[in-house]
Amino acid sequence: MAVIIRNGKVATASDVYTADILIENGIIKEIGTNLPCDNHEIIDAQGKYVIPGGIDAHTHLNLDVGIAVAKDDFYTGTVAAACGGTTTIIDHMGFGPKGSNLKHQVDVYHGYANGKAVIDYSFHAVFQHVDKDILEEMKDIIAKEGISSFKAYLTYNYKLSDAEVLKILIRLKELGGVATVHPENDAAVNYLREYYSKNNMLSPIYHAMSRPVECEAEAINKMINLAAIAGNEHLYIVHLSCGLGLDYIKMASERGQKVYAETCPQYLLLGEEKYKEPNNEGLKYIMSPPLRKKQDQEKLWKGIIDGFIQVVATDHCPFDFHVEKQLGKEDFTKCPNGAPGIETRVPLLFSEGVSKGRISINKFIEVIATNPAKIFGLYPKKGTIAVGSDADIVIIDPDKEVTLTKEMLHENVDYTLYEGFKLRGYPVLTMVRGRIVVKENKFVGEAGYGSFIKRSSTLQNKSQ
Amino acid sequence: MAVIIRNGKVATASDVYTADILIENGIIKEIGTNLPCDNHEIIDAQGKYVIPGGIDAHTHLNLDVGIAVAKDDFYTGTVAAACGGTTTIIDHMGFGPKGSNLKHQVDVYHGYANGKAVIDYSFHAVFQHVDKDILEEMKDIIAKEGISSFKAYLTYNYKLSDAEVLKILIRLKELGGVATVHPENDAAVNYLREYYSKNNMLSPIYHAMSRPVECEAEAINKMINLAAIAGNEHLYIVHLSCGLGLDYIKMASERGQKVYAETCPQYLLLGEEKYKEPNNEGLKYIMSPPLRKKQDQEKLWKGIIDGFIQVVATDHCPFDFHVEKQLGKEDFTKCPNGAPGIETRVPLLFSEGVSKGRISINKFIEVIATNPAKIFGLYPKKGTIAVGSDADIVIIDPDKEVTLTKEMLHENVDYTLYEGFKLRGYPVLTMVRGRIVVKENKFVGEAGYGSFIKRSSTLQNKSQ
Amino acid sequence: MAVIIRNGKVATASDVYTADILIENGIIKEIGTNLPCDNHEIIDAQGKYVIPGGIDAHTHLNLDVGIAVAKDDFYTGTVAAACGGTTTIIDHMGFGPKGSNLKHQVDVYHGYANGKAVIDYSFHAVFQHVDKDILEEMKDIIAKEGISSFKAYLTYNYKLSDAEVLKILIRLKELGGVATVHPENDAAVNYLREYYSKNNMLSPIYHAMSRPVECEAEAINKMINLAAIAGNEHLYIVHLSCGLGLDYIKMASERGQKVYAETCPQYLLLGEEKYKEPNNEGLKYIMSPPLRKKQDQEKLWKGIIDGFIQVVATDHCPFDFHVEKQLGKEDFTKCPNGAPGIETRVPLLFSEGVSKGRISINKFIEVIATNPAKIFGLYPKKGTIAVGSDADIVIIDPDKEVTLTKEMLHENVDYTLYEGFKLRGYPVLTMVRGRIVVKENKFVGEAGYGSFIKRSSTLQNKSQ
Amino acid sequence: MAVIIRNGKVATASDVYTADILIENGIIKEIGTNLPCDNHEIIDAQGKYVIPGGIDAHTHLNLDVGIAVAKDDFYTGTVAAACGGTTTIIDHMGFGPKGSNLKHQVDVYHGYANGKAVIDYSFHAVFQHVDKDILEEMKDIIAKEGISSFKAYLTYNYKLSDAEVLKILIRLKELGGVATVHPENDAAVNYLREYYSKNNMLSPIYHAMSRPVECEAEAINKMINLAAIAGNEHLYIVHLSCGLGLDYIKMASERGQKVYAETCPQYLLLGEEKYKEPNNEGLKYIMSPPLRKKQDQEKLWKGIIDGFIQVVATDHCPFDFHVEKQLGKEDFTKCPNGAPGIETRVPLLFSEGVSKGRISINKFIEVIATNPAKIFGLYPKKGTIAVGSDADIVIIDPDKEVTLTKEMLHENVDYTLYEGFKLRGYPVLTMVRGRIVVKENKFVGEAGYGSFIKRSSTLQNKSQ
Repeated sequence: MAVIIRNGKVATASDVYTADILIENGIIKEIGTNLPCDNHEIIDAQGKYVIPGGIDAHTHLNLDVGIAVAKDDFYTGTVAAACGGTTTIIDHMGFGPKGSNLKHQVDVYHGYANGKAVIDYSFHAVFQHVDKDILEEMKDIIAKEGISSFKAYLTYNYKLSDAEVLKILIRLKELGGVATVHPENDAAVNYLREYYSKNNMLSPIYHAMSRPVECEAEAINKMINLAAIAGNEHLYIVHLSCGLGLDYIKMASERGQKVYAETCPQYLLLGEEKYKEPNNEGLKYIMSPPLRKKQDQEKLWKGIIDGFIQVVATDHCPFDFHVEKQLGKEDFTKCPNGAPGIETRVPLLFSEGVSKGRISINKFIEVIATNPAKIFGLYPKKGTIAVGSDADIVIIDPDKEVTLTKEMLHENVDYTLYEGFKLRGYPVLTMVRGRIVVKENKFVGEAGYGSFIKRSSTLQNKSQ
Repeated sequence: MAVIIRNGKVATASDVYTADILIENGIIKEIGTNLPCDNHEIIDAQGKYVIPGGIDAHTHLNLDVGIAVAKDDFYTGTVAAACGGTTTIIDHMGFGPKGSNLKHQVDVYHGYANGKAVIDYSFHAVFQHVDKDILEEMKDIIAKEGISSFKAYLTYNYKLSDAEVLKILIRLKELGGVATVHPENDAAVNYLREYYSKNNMLSPIYHAMSRPVECEAEAINKMINLAAIAGNEHLYIVHLSCGLGLDYIKMASERGQKVYAETCPQYLLLGEEKYKEPNNEGLKYIMSPPLRKKQDQEKLWKGIIDGFIQVVATDHCPFDFHVEKQLGKEDFTKCPNGAPGIETRVPLLFSEGVSKGRISINKFIEVIATNPAKIFGLYPKKGTIAVGSDADIVIIDPDKEVTLTKEMLHENVDYTLYEGFKLRGYPVLTMVRGRIVVKENKFVGEAGYGSFIKRSSTLQNKSQ
Repeated sequence: MAVIIRNGKVATASDVYTADILIENGIIKEIGTNLPCDNHEIIDAQGKYVIPGGIDAHTHLNLDVGIAVAKDDFYTGTVAAACGGTTTIIDHMGFGPKGSNLKHQVDVYHGYANGKAVIDYSFHAVFQHVDKDILEEMKDIIAKEGISSFKAYLTYNYKLSDAEVLKILIRLKELGGVATVHPENDAAVNYLREYYSKNNMLSPIYHAMSRPVECEAEAINKMINLAAIAGNEHLYIVHLSCGLGLDYIKMASERGQKVYAETCPQYLLLGEEKYKEPNNEGLKYIMSPPLRKKQDQEKLWKGIIDGFIQVVATDHCPFDFHVEKQLGKEDFTKCPNGAPGIETRVPLLFSEGVSKGRISINKFIEVIATNPAKIFGLYPKKGTIAVGSDADIVIIDPDKEVTLTKEMLHENVDYTLYEGFKLRGYPVLTMVRGRIVVKENKFVGEAGYGSFIKRSSTLQNKSQ
Repeated sequence: MAVIIRNGKVATASDVYTADILIENGIIKEIGTNLPCDNHEIIDAQGKYVIPGGIDAHTHLNLDVGIAVAKDDFYTGTVAAACGGTTTIIDHMGFGPKGSNLKHQVDVYHGYANGKAVIDYSFHAVFQHVDKDILEEMKDIIAKEGISSFKAYLTYNYKLSDAEVLKILIRLKELGGVATVHPENDAAVNYLREYYSKNNMLSPIYHAMSRPVECEAEAINKMINLAAIAGNEHLYIVHLSCGLGLDYIKMASERGQKVYAETCPQYLLLGEEKYKEPNNEGLKYIMSPPLRKKQDQEKLWKGIIDGFIQVVATDHCPFDFHVEKQLGKEDFTKCPNGAPGIETRVPLLFSEGVSKGRISINKFIEVIATNPAKIFGLYPKKGTIAVGSDADIVIIDPDKEVTLTKEMLHENVDYTLYEGFKLRGYPVLTMVRGRIVVKENKFVGEAGYGSFIKRSSTLQNKSQ
């Protein structure tokens, strides 16, 4: 069946213009004016923005962190994503049993997603050890599995050593894969956690104090220099939270090295004072890296404006405040790390960014859709509104006023970090491959409609 | 008559995708796949880039510099522009008789352009003095004449004082106009010219030495600070030539001030050693600011990549080497300032930028078309390929190899700065409002086809 | 008569050690341990710092600003200086009758100082116009008058144009003189003063708002670039008040250009909120440049630590709050600019700097004595404790606690900017050329004891 | 016996003045003019600089690197040092048998030095593992052994992990010790060495290529951030060779963190092109970090001028070119790392620095003597010319012209890196504690005259 979206303000990472969009077989077939209607379903978008569906390059559905399992699975999580204007996610898979090869978790995650996801999805592969076999296997993961990005952790149980990191950077350069990295200095984090534990400083604020900006920034800068040594030009820093890390990224850029950086709404909008909220509500914000200071938030916005930060993702990893998060009630080190956000990303960026005049509508689209698509090999199938692209389309009513509350959201968790935030502008329709899946904040899609998207090597996929 | 451009790689400042473009009445009516052909003219663009026509925001047609008159008028100049892939120019008008109001030159230039121009055009108004009447008149120049950008010179006979500059910055803020500025410290330039003259240092290299980077950079930084004081957010630096000036612009950006900057191909590709060429050929390169050092060129490319330089224009102002330029044979101070470039801008940026991998195709389009359109109020009529926009379209064959020579160019002047440059990629078709004006480097348009484009106040025209 | 200062902690810009100092004929004759006493006067300095007398490179005694005359003359002003631990001043002379040559004011100021000054002194010559005669006369001012530094104003009635500034920078390079400059953009200041006046915004805070940091910083950066063009390596920025100006100075240094900068205690310790004090007390702080923000203060301290600011002087120019300052009661533009500070500089820097751990005792001495002596050609006669140097010596009791009040000070003015400041460390003895002039905050010297110090060209006086 | 040095230009880190110096019992007893001579030995220093003896904070006498032993022991090495104007060294001890405690090597090195050294000396303790016992032992090493600085290696066999580094930084903060660190990323160095080995790229230039600036700079920046986390303010980077590392140090300083840095003459004066010299002469320059590029040398000089580099030491570690260095003839990885320099440091810095106008005489003294003394707790006993200080004095004839050759030097090794360097200015006399040990380049001292200097905790020794 064919659909025409009429008269919307079609917006891309560079343009805004008024037009009709004709969709056939899930693909954008024509963009034009006064397109003839012949039994098409008509969606009136007059006065509204018609934008490419959001791409969330950093989610953790089904994630098992040992002491708890993330509350959203590929059904509830993608329903929430869709309601918030996101049409594709790239999930960061969890670790498998000790010694697992890369394929193991790919299979597990296909099992999680298949028949469940309501929007399209991909995975980032994850290293839990590095040896000859793994380095060899990477080739097939890209070529056969269609997964061309890999995650390295510098902290937690499966952290990689410098030698291992170097090997994967060099291998990814050969294969054309993206190296995404969780950068925190493991030794420093461990030292500080022990220190605060020993001194009985266990309330949520010590979570932030045990992961100071230097922990993160040091690790970012290490990755930058190892990538330079490896000649790797596809280093991608996940969840950048601090100005110091950004400074290192800018320094690298000054000397001609390209580094991609992702931040998240929580680092743009919330500060570390949240950890001191009464009734242990600080537990809600326990995530790594932690929330930072006001000046960090300002520097991150500046980083988006200047193009040193290319992506805004979520790191969505939800636990109930009244259940799992309470594990940390007496001791922050016992609290599962992570917070929800998959549904609020696009609305927050639109309202706090575009409506408040911090960024243009084009920059907004760039960071929530176009750049993640380009960096991770989804483009031009995903990430823009162009003829031939998938009809992953979101309609935003720029004048709609919404007060965020847990109740209106679809995330399967008992709180939102943004309770009470007053937004101007909100998605009113979400379409995935031509099919409407959300209408006026109601999910109208179907489990299993989402499909896995194979992504190709960066060697075939060049864009600045 | 309607036209379909088939199967090209349609490129904008953010996208590249394969599609057909349907043009009716000079406007892009539809973009789609397999658009039905019904008596349309078909242009096959398979394997080629289909890009928005170039916009040259800095030309000097018909310019009378006192000792000489620029060799290109609105006919020859726009023919050359069209052949080089440019479909709109914004000309910087010359000064009128002493005491002229702003309208005077607008009328003169309409006289120059009307019936001559083969592509569309606009003008930048020019200040030759500032008083109450002029400040008052600015309102009508924008509202009635449709000219919303103004040029201030900080050197030459009609240079403005700091007090005058402040007044126009404040006035332009009120009215929503762009302040374009030629920044050079007049006192320093004069001092150095006198010094070299007195010491009989009169060959072309002393032109460069009499205008060191500090002359330009000082004036840029003055404008930045005066704009900050005035609260003016539409300051536009013309023909940035040096890294030091760029550093000041970046510093301003670091503290949250937006400043637009334009550079030109000559500053990206040619160095001051050119002034020492034998047989007085250095005269060819006498322009202000002068050519700089290798490291300046590198910093300017970096400035484009990082987005601190938004526009590449030409400052096209041609004089014959064997005639007018010879006035400077014995004394560089007698040589008319300026050089040709209106035809080579788009091909040079494509070949040196895109083909050599320095910038992406999207960044290329951004700086030669989209950004100038947005900054100067031509967008979205001009500057992109989108439904509803003017069908100002250029087709580039990315594999075409061309060696630049004076002979193949259409500029009405006896030399090119780029003689012998080997290019990969060249425009093969130029269309203005749906009409083909150049085909395979042959002009097939008509004098007077170009029309004057009114531009609106920046108050109505917001984009980042 | 000979004196021995026993057992003090002798401190210089690089050293601290315990020793005796033997003084004969006003000169430091020996430094040693257990120097034999033979009819010498003995001063016990056990547990105290023995430092070189302070040099205040920026005072305005007797200054006539048209609407008022500074309250301190060369007697009261130097008494206050001596009580505060300063043993030499370099006064910035006021302007003479229109058309005066440089010598005119030198004579006037010798008249002011002769028979009055109780400590040693020199003058900075001042430009009120620049022509051939003045450029010629500069030679004699240095060679015959022994005045090798010159002041240029970029604002106020006798401001110099860029062309004039260039001429003096070039001339000073030839002659080996220091170019001191009061940097503020005159047009911007005038525009803003008129603007606030017209809008009846006349209370003291508008003084600050009419001289924003960009006014000062722009002028600083202009001087930096003009000095670079002139090849002048002795540019000295007076009363730097803001971080932005410092940034330009650091940028210059990064590219290898040496620029000297002076700040004053008021810019290190007081913020613009002072202008809003009740009862019009904001008038006390009206000076140019005005007080700035907290972050400026922090950047200036950092500038001292890192060596980009070499000198702390006072710009001492006192008017009674209850008399002259009241001229500005209804309108800040009518208030004479300037504030007292000649007596509090050394104690404030010691207490806020050394006692609070911001700077070392060596850095303290460097900025209050050694650097001004070196930069302005007084060294090694003045500015250090070394054999052969003048015995200009101050003893500071690092443990003495003092609360600053108007009453305890000797400045001939009815207020201090630092009323109520609690200091730790205060001068307890001041000696000029071997003669004690202040003892425990009591002046025991004599009018006319101070003598004029001839200073030589920088060509003879090289130090980094 | 007492000595008077007559009429020299006595120079310190801040002053230069002409005076006599009276020395009794090895101590500077008086500095004065026309000191009475009463049976004293008189040294005429008219027209010459009298400076504090050089302090070389980085030597490796007797060092056993496994495949070779450094050719200079505490006799030959200190004779050479003395002839070059150095009067104190702080030797970086080698590693002991596996599992050795800190005291073990202290005893071994006392054995090496005792009865041999001809000038005074101290040691830096060296970590070869870190555990509870070592952390405990550190207290006694400082308090009882008088060794308050410790060396951590981030590469080579006994490299420390991040966790270990953090522990020692925190412990040193408590105890008041200096953390000196050899910063190179071990994994990267190993990877690159293997890579070049595997590819048979084994000539000396690959030594430089296997240790790119990023290896060093990454490790420097890691140390900076770990020190910030630890709150340690006494981090000291040894042998800084590159501009990128300096950039990180400056960034740290910008945010208020103090980091000390040392460079060496070879990094200031020699470039990586040396590795390509014919006849395998590149082996002479094999040291870690390697020689860098011209722009690195320039940035390092700038770092000295601006005060971001406080110390110039040597890393003296000599092997004969014709013997030990030949081990690397076929394979750079087999070549013992290190080069001689203990004798040439002071003359090179004077000639290339002071005589060539790059730095002032004061800055020269600061980096070769005063700063190392202050940082490492030798001051004011050592490092300056002041009453009460040890009479460690060097007389430099600023006009003496010397061409450096292996023959004229006293280092026990068959080459110098500086063969053929033409110097202006050379030491003509070296005195240690009042005793002349070198006269006109002839050693006249005696084995065993040098004594071990105990150094105290930085907690007692505060200076900026």
